[in-house]
Amino acid sequence: MALIVQKYGGTSVANAERIRSLASRVGRFKKMGHQIVVVVSAMSGETNRLIGLAKEITLDPDPRELDVIVSTGEQVTIGMTCLALQELGLKAKSYTGSQVRILTNDSHGKARIIDIDGQNMQKDLDDGYVVVVAGFQGCDANGNITTLGRGGSDITGVALAAALKADECQIYTDVDGVYTTDPRVVPEARRLEKITFEEMLELASQGSKVLQTRSVEFAGKYKVKLRVLSSFTDEGEGTLITFEEDSKDENMEEPLISGIAFNRDEAKVTVLGVPDTPGIAYQILGPIADANIDVDMIIQNQGADDTTDFTFTVHKNEMDKALDIIRKQVQPNIHAREISGDDNIAKVSVVGVGMRSHVGIASQMFRTLSEEGINIQMISTSEIKVAVVIDEKYMELAVRVLHKAFELETA
Amino acid sequence: MALIVQKYGGTSVANAERIRSLASRVGRFKKMGHQIVVVVSAMSGETNRLIGLAKEITLDPDPRELDVIVSTGEQVTIGMTCLALQELGLKAKSYTGSQVRILTNDSHGKARIIDIDGQNMQKDLDDGYVVVVAGFQGCDANGNITTLGRGGSDITGVALAAALKADECQIYTDVDGVYTTDPRVVPEARRLEKITFEEMLELASQGSKVLQTRSVEFAGKYKVKLRVLSSFTDEGEGTLITFEEDSKDENMEEPLISGIAFNRDEAKVTVLGVPDTPGIAYQILGPIADANIDVDMIIQNQGADDTTDFTFTVHKNEMDKALDIIRKQVQPNIHAREISGDDNIAKVSVVGVGMRSHVGIASQMFRTLSEEGINIQMISTSEIKVAVVIDEKYMELAVRVLHKAFELETA
Repeated sequence: MALIVQKYGGTSVANAERIRSLASRVGRFKKMGHQIVVVVSAMSGETNRLIGLAKEITLDPDPRELDVIVSTGEQVTIGMTCLALQELGLKAKSYTGSQVRILTNDSHGKARIIDIDGQNMQKDLDDGYVVVVAGFQGCDANGNITTLGRGGSDITGVALAAALKADECQIYTDVDGVYTTDPRVVPEARRLEKITFEEMLELASQGSKVLQTRSVEFAGKYKVKLRVLSSFTDEGEGTLITFEEDSKDENMEEPLISGIAFNRDEAKVTVLGVPDTPGIAYQILGPIADANIDVDMIIQNQGADDTTDFTFTVHKNEMDKALDIIRKQVQPNIHAREISGDDNIAKVSVVGVGMRSHVGIASQMFRTLSEEGINIQMISTSEIKVAVVIDEKYMELAVRVLHKAFELETA
Repeated sequence: MALIVQKYGGTSVANAERIRSLASRVGRFKKMGHQIVVVVSAMSGETNRLIGLAKEITLDPDPRELDVIVSTGEQVTIGMTCLALQELGLKAKSYTGSQVRILTNDSHGKARIIDIDGQNMQKDLDDGYVVVVAGFQGCDANGNITTLGRGGSDITGVALAAALKADECQIYTDVDGVYTTDPRVVPEARRLEKITFEEMLELASQGSKVLQTRSVEFAGKYKVKLRVLSSFTDEGEGTLITFEEDSKDENMEEPLISGIAFNRDEAKVTVLGVPDTPGIAYQILGPIADANIDVDMIIQNQGADDTTDFTFTVHKNEMDKALDIIRKQVQPNIHAREISGDDNIAKVSVVGVGMRSHVGIASQMFRTLSEEGINIQMISTSEIKVAVVIDEKYMELAVRVLHKAFELETA
């Protein structure tokens, strides 16, 4: 008997038929003797419908009240999921984020989980219930409803698995695992049986849509065994996300590169010609962080005449806000020569745990892109990835040629 | 400065435009210096949509999970209402039933309010906030979401007014007050400026759709001043629901009859020829009450040969359930000669606080109906009303002739 947390995304609960199919799968796991916690998202399209309602009132809704509205999406799904489970003769009980008490901070719309009280759920599980929890939501210390931001249902799943010491957290989605890259861009893309947490983390942060970065971080931190599966088929084992040590033992000759990730949601903000003095990075990025804008890549390079050039990327939706802050709050102190933004960019990354010991990966990547005449605007590297920013229009071409250059279509 | 609770029904929050209009009205009251608590229903049609979703899964949904689903309707409205108030520059904060902590018993779908914690709301009011509360919902002692049943938003409004010791509870609806009868049936129907709680209670229980019985009971019990107003116009004072003593002072020559109510939602269950022994009424109605079926009229009459005949009315939706209970649980003990049900009935009531001292009202009513050839199937009287059950097809005719006979078209 194992305790398994199963998380189902919006397409997996899109309508009554899909919810019934979910219930059948849960029923099969129950029959095997497992204890099951189900985490569900809002029915697909529902969150956007609710945001649309709010936008009918105001284009800049108060985050607290927007959370009150948007969190109803998952609340409807937990009720419907319980009804479907009960129709199969299973005992089922729903929990909103507030009812579990998934305690978060008070950053509405992008709250972070502080603590989860697993006691009531554990009691229900021991009493034979399937516990169904609303993903994506929690409440702060004052009982205000919060949401974790888009993709937050994955985090809920992983956090519940950690709190309940679950044996496995299964993420059901509309793809049957993690691929070497998006099969819509490269038809030859191949499903990976296993991937390390670190690689998954890079893939997620580089824009792979299968799992959200924060949920992978969370899983790594609490050593939650994570598996990505398709809710549209009962075939296949999906992709298991493992700790590096485990996977190394089994496959000494693992491939260097596990995948190509891409992301067109970012925009870059460039600040040219600022005095090259200590503290300048903080002067620029401090106000951005204070405004709760997430920054991804940050690059600083020497400029002309004792000045330095500074570039960072933010989500496209926040570029204007970031530029506004730089121009109004930062510029009076730093007197930059030029401040500009560009949202016609894309980020393409080559990810692989094997690459840290192989210096040739980066040069192979740059050569492949240059052969196609694709100009590189920014470069950022970590131990297990090389990411470049290029003109958005070349993104798909870049992904295809890199997938081929690194021979990812063959295992 | 007064503390006013304003309750808005589904048609008053049907869309963004109506919600903005609500916000403007609240703004005007705030400008006069009042503290305002707004109670809102779900947007019209929304509760039915949510029930429809549940019914896609099962025709007999678990009441706990149905409440989880249905309660999202009001939750969306409180968020949208706050956004609209904030757009006008007002401070506003929403509360779900659980967040206020409107403590109820655990009868899902028809829960009763046990206690309301007004502390946080009062603090927000004192800090200048408009407090916006989800009607129709609460939570039980274990934190499970409950709903008060249809029309429960009125009760929420009255209960909040009682808990906060509000100066007035205003019920905004799509009619501009309480009428002598439904103007759709009798075009000459006239708006009443005032009506006593007792009359309102009878009108509500007799099927007048303006206010729900339980909310009027609640208001009477806690001496909450209640006013019915239209949310579609800023004209008019609506109808004030007063305590009898107040109204008597001002108008000695008050009319005998204040209105004609009617209701076609009931069905009658008849049990003929049961032994006329002590305890028989309890034997019949006990199991009905245990099944949580609300009974309205109850009539017992002597039958033939030391037997007695027993008739009661229930909501049409519950007639089959009631008949089933009588046949399976009760009949084995009482051996009735005949058990039958009829859902083609209507109830028509003449209501007026003046009638208790005037024996002629009932006879006038019976004569008027007999002149039209309308047969009376049941009669029930109280101090301030006479109600009859007739064939449903004569209902509108009966209402029209009674309205005319009691000269209700003239003040």
